[in-house]
Amino acid sequence: MKHKQLAPGMHDKLFKRAHSIYLIENKVTHFLMDSGFNRIDTPIIEHAGVFEDELDTHNYHLFDKHGDLLVVRPDVTQSIARVVATTKVTLPIKFSYSGKVFRQHDELKGLQNERMQAGIELIGFDGKKAIVEALELATASLSLAGVKDYRIELSHAGILQTIFNAFDMGQRAKLSICIKNKSITGLTEFVKHNPSEFDDFLVSLPRLFGPAQAVLKQAKVFVNNAKILSDLSEIEQLSEHFPDITIDLGMLARRNYYTGMMFRVFSDRVPYAFLSGGRYDKLFERFDAREMCAVGWALDVDAIYEEVRRDIVFDGGVR
Amino acid sequence: MKHKQLAPGMHDKLFKRAHSIYLIENKVTHFLMDSGFNRIDTPIIEHAGVFEDELDTHNYHLFDKHGDLLVVRPDVTQSIARVVATTKVTLPIKFSYSGKVFRQHDELKGLQNERMQAGIELIGFDGKKAIVEALELATASLSLAGVKDYRIELSHAGILQTIFNAFDMGQRAKLSICIKNKSITGLTEFVKHNPSEFDDFLVSLPRLFGPAQAVLKQAKVFVNNAKILSDLSEIEQLSEHFPDITIDLGMLARRNYYTGMMFRVFSDRVPYAFLSGGRYDKLFERFDAREMCAVGWALDVDAIYEEVRRDIVFDGGVR
Repeated sequence: MKHKQLAPGMHDKLFKRAHSIYLIENKVTHFLMDSGFNRIDTPIIEHAGVFEDELDTHNYHLFDKHGDLLVVRPDVTQSIARVVATTKVTLPIKFSYSGKVFRQHDELKGLQNERMQAGIELIGFDGKKAIVEALELATASLSLAGVKDYRIELSHAGILQTIFNAFDMGQRAKLSICIKNKSITGLTEFVKHNPSEFDDFLVSLPRLFGPAQAVLKQAKVFVNNAKILSDLSEIEQLSEHFPDITIDLGMLARRNYYTGMMFRVFSDRVPYAFLSGGRYDKLFERFDAREMCAVGWALDVDAIYEEVRRDIVFDGGVR
Repeated sequence: MKHKQLAPGMHDKLFKRAHSIYLIENKVTHFLMDSGFNRIDTPIIEHAGVFEDELDTHNYHLFDKHGDLLVVRPDVTQSIARVVATTKVTLPIKFSYSGKVFRQHDELKGLQNERMQAGIELIGFDGKKAIVEALELATASLSLAGVKDYRIELSHAGILQTIFNAFDMGQRAKLSICIKNKSITGLTEFVKHNPSEFDDFLVSLPRLFGPAQAVLKQAKVFVNNAKILSDLSEIEQLSEHFPDITIDLGMLARRNYYTGMMFRVFSDRVPYAFLSGGRYDKLFERFDAREMCAVGWALDVDAIYEEVRRDIVFDGGVR
């Protein structure tokens, strides 16, 4: 048995890195708890069915003693939705959490398979107010964590979902790759073979990125679909609260449970999103409960550390 | 796939419980970091060989994509020993950590399979000073965590190791059960069939428990073995620093890596030890490094919460 090497994608954190990540997580968590968010701590090991319908090979799987398939959690939001759906927690409710999440990435990419998250969920509140509150807390948390330069990117999961629904599974897979790669050539080729009411919009998608007002104005030129127009107007309303926000209409949902507004926070220095979140009203149906308004985000503390470590003067951590 | 039930032995923690456990862990960790302990964060998933020579069915096992056997860590000390043995960390060094550990217990026992620990390791220091410092930090941490009534039990892993070495594997297994159950009848029966120089000591073992001076005086009457006498005098020296300490010479090593002084902290209310630790100089040999003086302990934050929760007035956690 291997005993001296780390498992693939796993890292030891020591000294400045371990100390700083711990302090960032602490600061943000205390701020969130002080802001009225109830601490919740769901297990790191859960039944696979909490996270997956079909086997997701990027998850860490194991069997319990009954032969039931377990997963080392890839995400906390789904566990919190399970709690809300299956217990008598009084709604509306605000939760905050922090802890590790696990994904088995392609080794060649050199990504970390274990990451430290801190996050919130607002469940059962008015959707528009909740998303504004979530974004305000996101910027306050990033500032507490020492992040100075960042951009918030906004989109609406409904836009691409409306488009995907017009195609079959094979077409969706191809389309999804073209959108992800922001490939104008790929999208032009795709609409040539799969014409639809979305042709003009799809071909422009890689360019529909940037300051809110400009992008929305441009997008509306290409869109006739009522649902997409309504999603765009939802983005417009939200962007009025956050003047510096940018929009990326080609943003693919990072989690398949997002159904409404989605947001991510980036800088130019770090290849990961510092924070990502959105609205996931339908996730409760997975646990046989009714859909309800839900908004949340997770902050990636490891990514934050990569961004801010140059600004941290480390004295050994000893007072 | 199961999707609404928790995996066996796993629990959701919410509100007062989650909040209090988080605050206790925080207080202790900040105290330890402020006392000169370097934060370390080793991965929750490691190669099984870090923790096991043979398959331990109480561990959570999984395979990585190469087919290597992994374990969801049952313990942090072994990972820290791996770091010290395989990297060029400058010695002596003090580490502190906090995080989850995992064990698959017999379901009928109703034990928690995921527990929150906070702990320290002192590696490469003078052994006698290090164990005194570790115990002083243990009592200070318990007091910070709000634990008022507790008893510290002390023993020396060498005592039972010397005795076990006189017997074969089958005899050791029987003897171990009798000692664990503090069974005078069982031990009397055992020494009748397996006579040795330890007969008198073994039969008295279940009674060799209580205030340090009295127990040591009684023990010496039954012991002629030089190694055991030396271990007893080590206990005696340490107990002089801690007047209220108790001794349990029938304490079995909770981890097989303990080779010297061992201690555990209990109360009458909670069936778990709040804290357990000891000296584990030989653990580094597992990672092909030389033996070196090492002392550590882990505080079981879930057990602490069970002890102190009646004293915690919870206002919702919101300021």
